[in-house]
Amino acid sequence: MNDKYRIGIDVGGTTTKFGIVDYNGVILEQGRIPSNDRDFVEDFIDDLYIKLLPMIERIGGFEKLIGIGMGAPNGNIYSGTIEYAPNLRWKGIIPIAELMTKKFGLPTQLTNDANAAAMGEMMYGCTKNMKHFITITLGTGVGSGIVIDGKIVVGHDGFAGELGHTVIRPGGRIHKGTGLKGTLESYASATGVRETAIELLTGYPERESLLRNYRINDITSETVFQCAMQGDVIANEIFEFTGQILGESLANFVMFSSPEAIVLFGGLTKAGNLLMNPTRHHMEANLLPIFKNKVKLIFSELNESDAAILGASALI
Amino acid sequence: MNDKYRIGIDVGGTTTKFGIVDYNGVILEQGRIPSNDRDFVEDFIDDLYIKLLPMIERIGGFEKLIGIGMGAPNGNIYSGTIEYAPNLRWKGIIPIAELMTKKFGLPTQLTNDANAAAMGEMMYGCTKNMKHFITITLGTGVGSGIVIDGKIVVGHDGFAGELGHTVIRPGGRIHKGTGLKGTLESYASATGVRETAIELLTGYPERESLLRNYRINDITSETVFQCAMQGDVIANEIFEFTGQILGESLANFVMFSSPEAIVLFGGLTKAGNLLMNPTRHHMEANLLPIFKNKVKLIFSELNESDAAILGASALI
Repeated sequence: MNDKYRIGIDVGGTTTKFGIVDYNGVILEQGRIPSNDRDFVEDFIDDLYIKLLPMIERIGGFEKLIGIGMGAPNGNIYSGTIEYAPNLRWKGIIPIAELMTKKFGLPTQLTNDANAAAMGEMMYGCTKNMKHFITITLGTGVGSGIVIDGKIVVGHDGFAGELGHTVIRPGGRIHKGTGLKGTLESYASATGVRETAIELLTGYPERESLLRNYRINDITSETVFQCAMQGDVIANEIFEFTGQILGESLANFVMFSSPEAIVLFGGLTKAGNLLMNPTRHHMEANLLPIFKNKVKLIFSELNESDAAILGASALI
Repeated sequence: MNDKYRIGIDVGGTTTKFGIVDYNGVILEQGRIPSNDRDFVEDFIDDLYIKLLPMIERIGGFEKLIGIGMGAPNGNIYSGTIEYAPNLRWKGIIPIAELMTKKFGLPTQLTNDANAAAMGEMMYGCTKNMKHFITITLGTGVGSGIVIDGKIVVGHDGFAGELGHTVIRPGGRIHKGTGLKGTLESYASATGVRETAIELLTGYPERESLLRNYRINDITSETVFQCAMQGDVIANEIFEFTGQILGESLANFVMFSSPEAIVLFGGLTKAGNLLMNPTRHHMEANLLPIFKNKVKLIFSELNESDAAILGASALI
């Protein structure tokens, strides 16, 4: 088996990244295609096939491959289907594992995209020797993977670990995709940071801010970060508030599964200590004494898409 | 082994209940002592021994026993110690399993009291065939036991499953025992129901209520229940509010571990549909579509202390 390779695929809301991975977790070949260019999932799979074929030839052909692992939003490990993913173009229940197997002639395993990242972290990242940890991806949305006793928690139906959709401000900001109010994702995502910025700028028109040099449409979590680094008070408040919400949520998660570590991934983590400091402060402030100063709160050292490709490939 | 018995002990905040359990989960003998009458845990263990000795003789002596299982607040399954339990008289870290073994000459296993109840439910209650469920005990406080893949979740340090202390109203009502604000236990416990009653009665002095026939000190979750059953509007609002907070919290727990069922135990469940209806409504209202109308929300059919005695005994 040591000379065999696996394909790992990470279907994101915008981009699908894929790679061919060897036994040691080295990504030998990799590429990407848009996730939402195609009305039919069959055409998306054809695109994948066309891109992967030359890579497969370069590593020695199909006989070198033992299978395909795939992470996707709302991907279900039990059924191999993507079910009602709000960020993907294909609606309803998509039997993607079966369609992949038909096209590639290789066994295909599917799971939730955030779970794939957690698996990559467990196999190749900073939680390599841990049996209890949680990964939180702070990107366009908020994803999560929960590991207990060395296993990804999938629940009775395969959908466990949707921590981005837990409520932390009941009756709060509405989430456009889900209609739920006051969920973690509405605040502690790139989208949420942008919304917080707009709320503060329009709510306090008298307050000066470097962010007022941007058109509203151009404000992103990245511009907020740049302004915060230049000492802008409102921009710093935005990260303080984002960290508060995230920290309160993390305290809740700790009291659920008492993990050894929480690993943060994704675009927002570029903010570094601007985000980490308030997050840690508010997490600790909301923990029972038996949990205080125990949980390692860390940024992942893996590149996010590498983690997902590696994690997905490890499904096989 | 089929003719051997086990001792199950449930150390509660007020009362400690214990029993001798046979292979089929029948409680052959049982009794109780106060939990907090003794300054030293050694004296408490002496009290237990004196009460258990005649029972042990009746079932055929020590040679019929294979061990002792014990559930206690902040009981740690890894270390066998009770650590900083806010509701118990013995402070600090109490090596109770070791002390019990010394006194009784029997192997003793300790766990969290709520986990013991969950274990009893799994072995003898309505979740007998389930691998993923959560039990919530709505008593003086709010306890919880989480089962994933047929195993109680204890986390990396043995303290997982403190769902009563998760925050659901950030900045809300302060919890006198923990100092945390807006936690589930501050609202959805007998103590919380009483506090909600007092808040409503003093906050709206112009509103009529049967509860005004009681002295403030005499108002309990039980009196609120009785008034609600007589059609009292404020008393009904209290349960509606309690159910809302509980339901919102349960939605968060579902999105964590996607359980097949949530089992409610404890004194507050006597309120029946007064509590169940708003709880179910607000749980469903806060779930993502993939979780809606899937989770069985049920009252335990086991007597709460039986469940804990049975569950504790099953540790051995």
